[in-house]
Amino acid sequence: MKHSQTLIPTLKEVPADAEIKSHQLLVRAGFIRQTASGVYSFLPLGNKVLKKVENIVREEMEKAGAAEMLMPALQPADLWKKTGRWYTFGPELMRINDRHDREFALGATHEEVITNLISDEVKSYKKLPITLFQIQSKYRDEKRPRFGLLRGREFVMKDAYSFHDSFESLDEAYDKMVTAYSTIFERCGLDFRAVIADSGAMGGKDTHEFMVLSEIGEDTIAYSDSSDFAANIEMAPVLVDYRKENEELMSLDKVETPGYKTMQEVSQYLNKPLDKGIKSILFKVDERFVLVLSRGDHEINDIKLKNLYQTTDIELASEQEALQVLGAKVGSLGPINVSNVEVIADNAVEFIVNGYCGANEDDKHFINVNPSRDFQVKNYEDLRFIQEGDPSPDGKGTIRFAKGIEVGHVFKLGQLYADKLGATYLNEQGKQETMIMGCYGIGVSRTLAAIVEQYHDEKGITWPKEISPYDIHLIVVNPKNEEQSRLSDKLYNQLMDQRVSVLYDDRKERPGVKFADSDLIGLPIRITVGKKANEGIVECKLRTTGEQFDLHESEIMSKIQSLLA
Amino acid sequence: MKHSQTLIPTLKEVPADAEIKSHQLLVRAGFIRQTASGVYSFLPLGNKVLKKVENIVREEMEKAGAAEMLMPALQPADLWKKTGRWYTFGPELMRINDRHDREFALGATHEEVITNLISDEVKSYKKLPITLFQIQSKYRDEKRPRFGLLRGREFVMKDAYSFHDSFESLDEAYDKMVTAYSTIFERCGLDFRAVIADSGAMGGKDTHEFMVLSEIGEDTIAYSDSSDFAANIEMAPVLVDYRKENEELMSLDKVETPGYKTMQEVSQYLNKPLDKGIKSILFKVDERFVLVLSRGDHEINDIKLKNLYQTTDIELASEQEALQVLGAKVGSLGPINVSNVEVIADNAVEFIVNGYCGANEDDKHFINVNPSRDFQVKNYEDLRFIQEGDPSPDGKGTIRFAKGIEVGHVFKLGQLYADKLGATYLNEQGKQETMIMGCYGIGVSRTLAAIVEQYHDEKGITWPKEISPYDIHLIVVNPKNEEQSRLSDKLYNQLMDQRVSVLYDDRKERPGVKFADSDLIGLPIRITVGKKANEGIVECKLRTTGEQFDLHESEIMSKIQSLLA
Repeated sequence: MKHSQTLIPTLKEVPADAEIKSHQLLVRAGFIRQTASGVYSFLPLGNKVLKKVENIVREEMEKAGAAEMLMPALQPADLWKKTGRWYTFGPELMRINDRHDREFALGATHEEVITNLISDEVKSYKKLPITLFQIQSKYRDEKRPRFGLLRGREFVMKDAYSFHDSFESLDEAYDKMVTAYSTIFERCGLDFRAVIADSGAMGGKDTHEFMVLSEIGEDTIAYSDSSDFAANIEMAPVLVDYRKENEELMSLDKVETPGYKTMQEVSQYLNKPLDKGIKSILFKVDERFVLVLSRGDHEINDIKLKNLYQTTDIELASEQEALQVLGAKVGSLGPINVSNVEVIADNAVEFIVNGYCGANEDDKHFINVNPSRDFQVKNYEDLRFIQEGDPSPDGKGTIRFAKGIEVGHVFKLGQLYADKLGATYLNEQGKQETMIMGCYGIGVSRTLAAIVEQYHDEKGITWPKEISPYDIHLIVVNPKNEEQSRLSDKLYNQLMDQRVSVLYDDRKERPGVKFADSDLIGLPIRITVGKKANEGIVECKLRTTGEQFDLHESEIMSKIQSLLA
Repeated sequence: MKHSQTLIPTLKEVPADAEIKSHQLLVRAGFIRQTASGVYSFLPLGNKVLKKVENIVREEMEKAGAAEMLMPALQPADLWKKTGRWYTFGPELMRINDRHDREFALGATHEEVITNLISDEVKSYKKLPITLFQIQSKYRDEKRPRFGLLRGREFVMKDAYSFHDSFESLDEAYDKMVTAYSTIFERCGLDFRAVIADSGAMGGKDTHEFMVLSEIGEDTIAYSDSSDFAANIEMAPVLVDYRKENEELMSLDKVETPGYKTMQEVSQYLNKPLDKGIKSILFKVDERFVLVLSRGDHEINDIKLKNLYQTTDIELASEQEALQVLGAKVGSLGPINVSNVEVIADNAVEFIVNGYCGANEDDKHFINVNPSRDFQVKNYEDLRFIQEGDPSPDGKGTIRFAKGIEVGHVFKLGQLYADKLGATYLNEQGKQETMIMGCYGIGVSRTLAAIVEQYHDEKGITWPKEISPYDIHLIVVNPKNEEQSRLSDKLYNQLMDQRVSVLYDDRKERPGVKFADSDLIGLPIRITVGKKANEGIVECKLRTTGEQFDLHESEIMSKIQSLLA
């Protein structure tokens, strides 16, 4: 492609609204432009990269035995009402009425449409298992779209769905997908981890996220420093590996803690370690109250709480409610003498000796508190967030944290959607059964941004070979010089004839502008036709290493082939 | 691809709602399924064909020097308000509000978004001309979606836009596009015509439609039987080639025509030929009244009327308005003694001798009416629809009609959108000028349906080679027979290794079911592994001709290569 025939509007300045590198560089290098908040146009270079990622995804999906299809973005509301998500998805689901006032959702995901389709078309176990995928624009009306392509409202996604007659068959498909995803992100050149995750609003149980490691990631990954264990901290289980201190039990006492509310404040005031504190938080779970205890240096993980009670309806009780139920304000709550609400505790609490906790009287705390002697709990559970330094849940090594960008997600959905949409089949015995499902997503446009987060330097993007919009950046230093212009035109035509993917900067711009644009755009190999054109010599420069050498025109093709191999 | 791994839900019955062959066959052969009225899912085979057409379009667009990009479907209403189409596009434009109640249009077309983008990014004549295209789902809320993929509400389109600093440059790009379009539709195997068309709601002047000839087409093409003239009848000019009959002028007379209103009725009652009648229709043009005359056997073409008055605001006057303005009901109107409204006439009227027309009194007509003697008109114009038998407007041959399916449309937009969206540039002299634009659309999913309209027989679809979802349909007659199963598996693996595109019917179905499905799906070459498997012999059958012959397994690859060449 000749630069003069395409649109690559590079910018010198960093756009004011672009906080992260991928957003800044994709805009500055002329790959994308914002059309509305969270809504982008992919300019020719951006579209090239998008198609490269799409093709990698397509190839690996097909290798994994999935068949490509294409579902519409306009989805009848009726289907979403059947699964209930019309009501629970919230404002992220964009809704539109047609001219006859019929309601539609704008595809945020396609479980409803595909399950309804399969329910109509697949009636026998003979046609199972089947895995279908599509690559398509999705719509989610994010509250705060940001970070360019990382959190947009219209974005390109690959979504796949599998249907099965047994959980073993689902496990097989799931494992194939995990393998395919790993290959996809490897081919994209990404440093990533597959981590145990929470299934959130999608329903289902087993689920992994594919996280690209990056400081700007919005998710935190807890990983072991000595094994391949990795989980979203939302989901990472905590090993019960606490020890009781060998200390004599002292007698319970009530003390004044005037105005001290947080665990840190009380710990300092009482001059007792934070890990002897018993933090007591009153939650409202499905309209009833539950007092949840954790150690003072730990944080309650509300996703674990939700999973324990199998509900999404969990919130903190208000100041008013705390006063009403336990007789004290938040900050002085505790488990002692509480009989009117359920009390549960994180496993660590059981091991506290001579601890302290709120006394259910404002500005008063108990000290020398000992679980089971001084209060009872219904259950000890794994309720807290894992922390750096904790033992790895697989028993191997110590937990470290890293930030990650979620680029893929695989779920075992089970029978949730099939149940609600009546996706049944006749088994080998002629008996009607409900299908078992999996679903598998990749944020294609987000992956593109994640690649730029990992592949850039101070001058611009440094595309990995398989993703780069073109392989070669051919630059003519002075197109008005006849020898330079003749040689570069000749090379361009040769490269095109050999189907080498090349961007030819044929513009009448100053060399400095061309070189700066070339560094910004970041193609792997730059070939510059300059002063030595009369000797048939060009300069070759590698974007990533900066390595630079002269080549005679006769050597170019073989050198390129070896560099790209 | 193995049949058992994909979704091809064939049907024996014709779906009740499918009126035309392409709709029936694409549903029956398992290529598409309806998700909502006018909204379809492309199943794996449908998606394959769609991608084939897309790739042909992409290749030819790139050859024509256009660069691919991708714009969003969510388009800020502000842009549409600037061009005024937010108000004029009507209910076909789907509209959606985001969570902050900001208005968006769902992309029906992208002139607004691209012109706004180019206006921001291109400031100098040096960056012109440029042609950009995208392939993407579009949304138009058709009043009556029908005919499957032919008139849907969500459909795949290729749209291209070109920007220029001169009309000559636009002409060049336009001609390149016309050539590219012809190549695209030829590669799709289509019998089509490029016809002169009306630019309708898109604005602009020069425009051609690409029409696939088909009895079920919703458009009528007027073409010459002796030249390459072809136009949509909406636009076909009519040659002034009338002759006055050599007849003595008789004196004007008023006669009773009790209850006779239409030209046919009056013609029969008066026993005078239809082509001596002067049809008089009262229109409301931009809020004023115009009486429009045509010959009794001709029909007024309201698009010609709109173009004459350069307005879209033209409607028939009501019964009430006719009475008020001309003193008689519709059916007895005429031009004689009319002074309070403008009278215009189609060219043919001037040549009528001793004609007849309404007398502006209910149930009365004038006879022996002679234009210019008995009434005056402001202008004679080309106002009627062309008819079969008329001379071709290029003076060569006679007009015939054919029905066509519009699959492509090219427009010279001029400066309409650039003006309204401020797309200006600095010319070589540093002076600010408004850009000149062209736009070019192809209905990709509609093209797919048009291909099926031209490629089918009583048994199913007969895909042309370049479009077929797979080249080879490999069928094992009895997969339980070890020799058959072994040979067909071996052939499948060989074909896959050689990257031959093959669909392998590995199902445990009766041979009759497999053959019927194979005819319905319509791949060009069928290879059947049956009883002669033990001798290494298979049967090869060509879908289009029905030709059938045995092949030894050693010959298969070379035979396939020559058949597909």
